[in-house]
Amino acid sequence: MSNDNHYQFEVVMTCSGCSNAVNKALTRLEPDVSNIDISLENQTVDVHSSLPYETVLEKIKKTGKEVKSGRTL
Amino acid sequence: MSNDNHYQFEVVMTCSGCSNAVNKALTRLEPDVSNIDISLENQTVDVHSSLPYETVLEKIKKTGKEVKSGRTL
Repeated sequence: MSNDNHYQFEVVMTCSGCSNAVNKALTRLEPDVSNIDISLENQTVDVHSSLPYETVLEKIKKTGKEVKSGRTL
Repeated sequence: MSNDNHYQFEVVMTCSGCSNAVNKALTRLEPDVSNIDISLENQTVDVHSSLPYETVLEKIKKTGKEVKSGRTL
């Protein structure tokens, strides 16, 4: 399956424990997601996926983190 | 519904963003959970619930936080 969609989310993360938690949650979606790139400094979560935008968004929201915005690149 | 079960989990939380995320995830289960009591200092999550232990455990795991142990009190 090809992970053709590239999504970027702005997520409130205040420590490496926060960003690791988001990474762990998204990693569980592999191989339907790949190239997970999380920046605590920029408060961004980049991911490539074959899944719909809403599915990935919901997965991040289930971590309990606030998602301030998101977009398809 | 009566939240007769009292569960306690040991969860790795390194900042208030971490503990808030767990709180937010559990709050979504209301009214099937109540008396959510989270201590960042003690690394504990206490909750009363009508739901099975495994269901509450899974909800916490979906936050991406490491659950070191859990028990029914």
